[in-house]
Amino acid sequence: MAERVGFIGLGIMGRGMAANLLRAGFSLTVWNRTPERAESLGAAGAVVAANPAELAAASDIVITCVSDTPDVEAVILGSHGVIHGIRPGSLVIDMSTISPQATRAMAAALAERGVDMLDAPISGGSEGAAQGTLSIMVGGEAPVLQRAMPVLQAMGKRITHVGPHGAGQTVKLVNQVLVVGNCLAMCEALLLAQAGGVDLARTLEAVSGGAAGSWMLSQRGPQILARDWRPGFTVALQQKDLRLVLEAADQQGVPLPGTALIFQLYRTLEAKGLGGDGNHALVKALEALAGFEIEGTQPTV
Amino acid sequence: MAERVGFIGLGIMGRGMAANLLRAGFSLTVWNRTPERAESLGAAGAVVAANPAELAAASDIVITCVSDTPDVEAVILGSHGVIHGIRPGSLVIDMSTISPQATRAMAAALAERGVDMLDAPISGGSEGAAQGTLSIMVGGEAPVLQRAMPVLQAMGKRITHVGPHGAGQTVKLVNQVLVVGNCLAMCEALLLAQAGGVDLARTLEAVSGGAAGSWMLSQRGPQILARDWRPGFTVALQQKDLRLVLEAADQQGVPLPGTALIFQLYRTLEAKGLGGDGNHALVKALEALAGFEIEGTQPTV
Amino acid sequence: MAERVGFIGLGIMGRGMAANLLRAGFSLTVWNRTPERAESLGAAGAVVAANPAELAAASDIVITCVSDTPDVEAVILGSHGVIHGIRPGSLVIDMSTISPQATRAMAAALAERGVDMLDAPISGGSEGAAQGTLSIMVGGEAPVLQRAMPVLQAMGKRITHVGPHGAGQTVKLVNQVLVVGNCLAMCEALLLAQAGGVDLARTLEAVSGGAAGSWMLSQRGPQILARDWRPGFTVALQQKDLRLVLEAADQQGVPLPGTALIFQLYRTLEAKGLGGDGNHALVKALEALAGFEIEGTQPTV
Amino acid sequence: MAERVGFIGLGIMGRGMAANLLRAGFSLTVWNRTPERAESLGAAGAVVAANPAELAAASDIVITCVSDTPDVEAVILGSHGVIHGIRPGSLVIDMSTISPQATRAMAAALAERGVDMLDAPISGGSEGAAQGTLSIMVGGEAPVLQRAMPVLQAMGKRITHVGPHGAGQTVKLVNQVLVVGNCLAMCEALLLAQAGGVDLARTLEAVSGGAAGSWMLSQRGPQILARDWRPGFTVALQQKDLRLVLEAADQQGVPLPGTALIFQLYRTLEAKGLGGDGNHALVKALEALAGFEIEGTQPTV
Repeated sequence: MAERVGFIGLGIMGRGMAANLLRAGFSLTVWNRTPERAESLGAAGAVVAANPAELAAASDIVITCVSDTPDVEAVILGSHGVIHGIRPGSLVIDMSTISPQATRAMAAALAERGVDMLDAPISGGSEGAAQGTLSIMVGGEAPVLQRAMPVLQAMGKRITHVGPHGAGQTVKLVNQVLVVGNCLAMCEALLLAQAGGVDLARTLEAVSGGAAGSWMLSQRGPQILARDWRPGFTVALQQKDLRLVLEAADQQGVPLPGTALIFQLYRTLEAKGLGGDGNHALVKALEALAGFEIEGTQPTV
Repeated sequence: MAERVGFIGLGIMGRGMAANLLRAGFSLTVWNRTPERAESLGAAGAVVAANPAELAAASDIVITCVSDTPDVEAVILGSHGVIHGIRPGSLVIDMSTISPQATRAMAAALAERGVDMLDAPISGGSEGAAQGTLSIMVGGEAPVLQRAMPVLQAMGKRITHVGPHGAGQTVKLVNQVLVVGNCLAMCEALLLAQAGGVDLARTLEAVSGGAAGSWMLSQRGPQILARDWRPGFTVALQQKDLRLVLEAADQQGVPLPGTALIFQLYRTLEAKGLGGDGNHALVKALEALAGFEIEGTQPTV
Repeated sequence: MAERVGFIGLGIMGRGMAANLLRAGFSLTVWNRTPERAESLGAAGAVVAANPAELAAASDIVITCVSDTPDVEAVILGSHGVIHGIRPGSLVIDMSTISPQATRAMAAALAERGVDMLDAPISGGSEGAAQGTLSIMVGGEAPVLQRAMPVLQAMGKRITHVGPHGAGQTVKLVNQVLVVGNCLAMCEALLLAQAGGVDLARTLEAVSGGAAGSWMLSQRGPQILARDWRPGFTVALQQKDLRLVLEAADQQGVPLPGTALIFQLYRTLEAKGLGGDGNHALVKALEALAGFEIEGTQPTV
Repeated sequence: MAERVGFIGLGIMGRGMAANLLRAGFSLTVWNRTPERAESLGAAGAVVAANPAELAAASDIVITCVSDTPDVEAVILGSHGVIHGIRPGSLVIDMSTISPQATRAMAAALAERGVDMLDAPISGGSEGAAQGTLSIMVGGEAPVLQRAMPVLQAMGKRITHVGPHGAGQTVKLVNQVLVVGNCLAMCEALLLAQAGGVDLARTLEAVSGGAAGSWMLSQRGPQILARDWRPGFTVALQQKDLRLVLEAADQQGVPLPGTALIFQLYRTLEAKGLGGDGNHALVKALEALAGFEIEGTQPTV
């Protein structure tokens, strides 16, 4: 019999992921801090729990997908948290992006109750969440991942076991370094193209398929040309993840000069109230510096 | 009847491209400054010319694929250059990466002789050159591109007309901003993974397919893990192209803080005698700074 | 009658400062976590206390000059801390560099006991501490500063009231941005001079007195030429202060791209075990990148 | 008898320098491309020549102080240039900032005519030019400098012989790295102070005299607070000098990551039409990025 799943955190990513679990036939209980966000899933067949403890009591596998380290700690360890409802033999899968250290501490706290844990942060943007094509980086024990696999496969297409507790989070930070680095490259490239007077849509078409290609360029390049700032992943969340990256790099003695520059650029977007834009709005920081803008056009392709 | 093709410049890229022209059935004449490099193509059926003028006299379409602006000027306009042998009605396609301004000047000089020109720089690395899967960014007139299409299709799979004379070069510079930006992101990401103690091959596997993915990461990430510095594209050529990028950005008033940082990092590799390494050797600059190295392992996948 | 002074923290800065208080005729009690460091001051006439509480009980004005926020919190609020011995009407002057927020919280805790506080961080290096020529940036109430003035004048020559509680710390962070920025400029300049083949001592002589001049260049430039890495201010403490700077900049939405780069460079020195070098050892990070070193020579002047 | 002096180039620096020569009692001939700029010196007693050749014919020592390498080449080697009027045994002192290589070539050309040359670029801003307190970095032969000394002493107070032909220019580039590095540090520091809510004039007062101090901070900090952008040294000239710096660094394999960042920031000011502002307008690039401005206030001190 399929395991009963509980899903905590119905934000920009979680909504799509939970919907995919329903679609895959899982019996689903959901909870969100802002209850309104749970309504559409309730209408689609999910049970809406009153709090994380109640959700945990009704689930074999509890998934958390919230914003930051303190949020995960609150829904798992806080009052009415998962830990107060969960039964031994259950499994918690945290799909948020948080500190590797905090992850290891929570895994230990849950283990004392006989509960397994995986850190399983994700990549792929809101599109990947909606389409069930996320990349999932998993830290924890192999047999536990085996158990989680059917659930994870309903949400992602590339599920990789990268090591023990915390390793998933470390790889997610690595992922974010790549995301923002590819993003800065895209923004600088488009500014140069704009100033050079070439057609931007043709430029994207010409360079996306070769050695310059990236997911970022293919997915977000056309959005920039259309000046469409709807988020796959918001500036505010990107900045939050970069804080985790730079903290880890500082602890481990790794110089990340490019990432440090990018952090400073994103910082100005938050200060200007653009934290809710998609992370490709990084281009607006460069535009402010340059004194000109990418011209909004519909891409040809 | 297929047009007779002349190919000048049998370096790391040109060799594969010329071989693909032969394979596609074109009658081919070749010339290279260092004659030894022409021998294998001679053995495969190409005629080896004594100089660019002689090559031009025997060709309907002359392709140049050499290093830098002065090299193109030398083989086209210099003594025994293309311009001294070429007949009116012929076509010159320059597939080197050079200054957009110099391109426009040469196109004008050739037009006075009744000779058409296209700037058609390429992207895709030596692999793309060998496999005929290059991306080709074309500047010039549409009917001229029409004529060139069968020849270009023998060498590349994505051929995009991006504007008038010089536009191909501008888009190529845009392409290089992307290449090096994606490369720096990869290098910083791998250093962070190394310091974080996760398995690097698994890490590549986990992140390459999602929002962090890029051609650079898929193609060069495993090379870095294997500490295989054989070039697709050398540090020296990358640095040369970045000089063109920064010069264009300066002229057009575009701030490229990330690219400027990368230029400084590459600069140290040339100074250390690593100009012949592949451009992913950028990681060695960060390693020197960090004081530790990515550990050489064979990627799992 | 002069107020009795207690001095906590006899590190690289505190030793000279405490000696200047003795020299100025103040009755002095001292305490240091590592008791050996108190011995020479004991020999010179200071009383050595058993703990901060005992020191506070014997003093009218308590000065703290320790490393970081948690250290100040420990000596003031911890077990056997200042707060357990100090009498109402006394004054605490914290001359450490710590978080402005933590400063305000401690000022409030002391105020509840009827104890005044000033934040009075310092600049000027170990030379300034030894010679009594420190710059002191003071946050707190004006009448309280009036009371502290004789004590501060024994240690510094430029004492500026910059605002309420915490303002001294904010200005100190501003000071550190200047220090490291001037330091990076010096390091890049000396590398360029070295590579350009000019005499480095003559170069320092030529540029130090004009628009390029700075305290950093005059004081640390000759040390770099002599490859003398003895600290005025250590890399480890500089890095600690930069963490405070970048944290404040993040909270306040200020982009500091240069400082962020410098932080990444210093980070590599700590990782290489050079945390005890003077902050001018920043040049070693650039030397590692460049692949050559400033040649050690005795400056001509 | 004092030598007769000719002065070419009456810009922001040259005007003050020429006036100081008059004041020191030298017989002076002047020339400027825009003749109006020569009028006030003519009124003060200088002879205004019709062209550089005529000026050279009337002078024992010819000083050039113009913008860039091509300008120096034009006034010395061009038609009606110095070389066409100068007599053997004369001396040319170039006080412009230009390429070290071009300097060496011109020295050789003049030597063939029996004319000595010194490269003697300057630092100290328009204030230093007006007050005769410039720093002068001299390349060339020692006896020739001996001859030039009375003339140089009328314009500067720190005259340093740094090596053979070209060495003066190299040291000047070193000087510029320091100037812009100290300037970026100042700009970031003031932004942090502004965001931290402290009084900016008090902040300058507090930090200028210690380890954070620099000529830049003392001279330009108050100008920024007053939003006074009148140039000592313009953005456009600063950017021109940085091009020389980065070109030399590239040729010599020196990584200058901080200077490269600063160049990108200055670039945006030229693009926004602010090339005529003083070089402390660098802060405007950071303000555009930050989205807030330093508030214009009159400094207290």
